[in-house]
Amino acid sequence: MSGMTAQAIEAFLAQQFPEVQTPRVLEANGVTARLELEFRTSQLRPGGTVSGPTLMALADTAMYALVLSAIGEVPLAVTTNLTMNFLRRPHPEALVAEASMLKLGRSLAVGEVSLRSVSTSEVCAHAVVTYALPPER
Amino acid sequence: MSGMTAQAIEAFLAQQFPEVQTPRVLEANGVTARLELEFRTSQLRPGGTVSGPTLMALADTAMYALVLSAIGEVPLAVTTNLTMNFLRRPHPEALVAEASMLKLGRSLAVGEVSLRSVSTSEVCAHAVVTYALPPER
Amino acid sequence: MSGMTAQAIEAFLAQQFPEVQTPRVLEANGVTARLELEFRTSQLRPGGTVSGPTLMALADTAMYALVLSAIGEVPLAVTTNLTMNFLRRPHPEALVAEASMLKLGRSLAVGEVSLRSVSTSEVCAHAVVTYALPPER
Amino acid sequence: MSGMTAQAIEAFLAQQFPEVQTPRVLEANGVTARLELEFRTSQLRPGGTVSGPTLMALADTAMYALVLSAIGEVPLAVTTNLTMNFLRRPHPEALVAEASMLKLGRSLAVGEVSLRSVSTSEVCAHAVVTYALPPER
Repeated sequence: MSGMTAQAIEAFLAQQFPEVQTPRVLEANGVTARLELEFRTSQLRPGGTVSGPTLMALADTAMYALVLSAIGEVPLAVTTNLTMNFLRRPHPEALVAEASMLKLGRSLAVGEVSLRSVSTSEVCAHAVVTYALPPER
Repeated sequence: MSGMTAQAIEAFLAQQFPEVQTPRVLEANGVTARLELEFRTSQLRPGGTVSGPTLMALADTAMYALVLSAIGEVPLAVTTNLTMNFLRRPHPEALVAEASMLKLGRSLAVGEVSLRSVSTSEVCAHAVVTYALPPER
Repeated sequence: MSGMTAQAIEAFLAQQFPEVQTPRVLEANGVTARLELEFRTSQLRPGGTVSGPTLMALADTAMYALVLSAIGEVPLAVTTNLTMNFLRRPHPEALVAEASMLKLGRSLAVGEVSLRSVSTSEVCAHAVVTYALPPER
Repeated sequence: MSGMTAQAIEAFLAQQFPEVQTPRVLEANGVTARLELEFRTSQLRPGGTVSGPTLMALADTAMYALVLSAIGEVPLAVTTNLTMNFLRRPHPEALVAEASMLKLGRSLAVGEVSLRSVSTSEVCAHAVVTYALPPER
């Protein structure tokens, strides 16, 4: 099965997770993916920073988008491990996530994701994410 | 500074994070903490399971509650690392989080958190969470 | 395939890894495992503490012993993720590792491991370890 | 305090850890570091692959070298967290480690490390490593 396009992934995420704010999928080519999450005041925490769960959800979604761009529509792919390091307080603005594939194996996909506030170049959080892939695909 | 009680922690969480569903803090004694998060349909994902971000947010909050119960009100404590393993699909029902302190140091607190659906005994997700503590307290 | 006994695991480890100091496997029952690694001066680091790689190797071996006790001789099981938190400096003495299974799935086994110096009760390091299991067994 | 040069770091590692095989420090400039570990048959495991502890020790040392190149001689810097993903079996040959700084803070340094066999371009293991830095320096 061939990979999904950025546009198809964005539509798929919106349909699968209707309750959740869908990030824009700016790019997704099987090797890297770049997403952007619009800022909303509901993401804020005391101190004017974006919440940790917002960051974790975006990192997880960025890796999912990367997997979808690599192997096509796999609704049964599930996160098995997510390791997140919180490095700097993100600004109250849009977040950019850049995911890159470390390994696309038969049963596991491992990638790393860097997050930053859109107006900055410094990484505010870094994640390594593992997805278990369905056996037949 | 002495630790906060479970009741005080629950009130503090509700006040600090008004936008977010506050879990009940059933117990928190500086060594362990037990929280319960009521089920809401907005937590659901395709397949009838509770979303990963819901689990990650609860694990993070459980460790924060444990820190507050150990050293008192520290609004400046921040998560620096969260490593989560997703083990089994949680049921569409309330979640219980049990946190226990691995180390309470001068500048870092490390704990582990087990999550399970309230009607089961099997762990559905496991986290190790590190908080950086403010220097003077 | 049924699990291996503690005694069989210890012999298997010694045979598979002849170059490495084999820990004693004190107990291994498919749910928990307990190993002890004798102290050697070659493990020491400046400050009189046991080296990080010694701790990581012991945590990995403890989880491997637990897997072997659960599903039998699986030479092809490989570590896919090891997350280690170093909590306190271990003493220059034997180390005890206690592993417990968080999930034994079809393709992945996840466990946690606590390490402590033999004369103490405080955990000096904590690991969460994932093994990929061979498909047919 | 200014950072150490690659040459000074290599000498410092050899002096601090006389029992251990010292990798060559090819480059270390405060932002990235590149090390190479010569192959020895004692690193081998069944199947002709390099052992996990060899990989973990090299990742840890690469991050330590990067810290030394950033802030100078800090014998008291200690690893607090190491998260390793094992991606592909390394070949029986020299290993190259490339570390890059994600954050150099007041009390914590976080970096990521990619390892590969010297003749290949594919990453065989990936680590995220946190060091606690001494308070006054």
